[in-house]
Amino acid sequence: MYVIMVYDVKEKRVAKVLKIGRRYLTRVQNSVLEGEITKANFEMLKVELRDVIEEEEDSVLFYILRTEVYIEREVIGVEKGGEAIIL
Amino acid sequence: MYVIMVYDVKEKRVAKVLKIGRRYLTRVQNSVLEGEITKANFEMLKVELRDVIEEEEDSVLFYILRTEVYIEREVIGVEKGGEAIIL
Repeated sequence: MYVIMVYDVKEKRVAKVLKIGRRYLTRVQNSVLEGEITKANFEMLKVELRDVIEEEEDSVLFYILRTEVYIEREVIGVEKGGEAIIL
Repeated sequence: MYVIMVYDVKEKRVAKVLKIGRRYLTRVQNSVLEGEITKANFEMLKVELRDVIEEEEDSVLFYILRTEVYIEREVIGVEKGGEAIIL
């Protein structure tokens, strides 16, 4: 499966959330990661995130696709993640 | 077509970018909007955004799908957009 993760968390937890996310996915914008992931690893990612975030204050949104084939990407401006994005 | 828009722009331009985005899409998280959009409106959205953002400093990332059918959503924590998200 292919997952896009967008987080919006309090500043003090950004580094932790990003560190967890990067173990499973690739960063594509400041608060966006994505990548191919197994169902088991996706469950682990969510468990790890739940340990760190405050569910009353923070928000992590996942878009889940069966395959990357269905999505196209386009970027206006800076590609902040540092990783290549195909336009 | 179905578009997810994630923006990461300097604070002074956030309100403008959000205002433009909301004319075309629905907000689902602080810096995430999505929705069904025609190809022509998507082009107009990009033109409007290019007028407002600084391409050296800001970043707007679009995920484009032929249809919403291919995506599932999951949220951990707050649903900040205020609009309903189906889990």
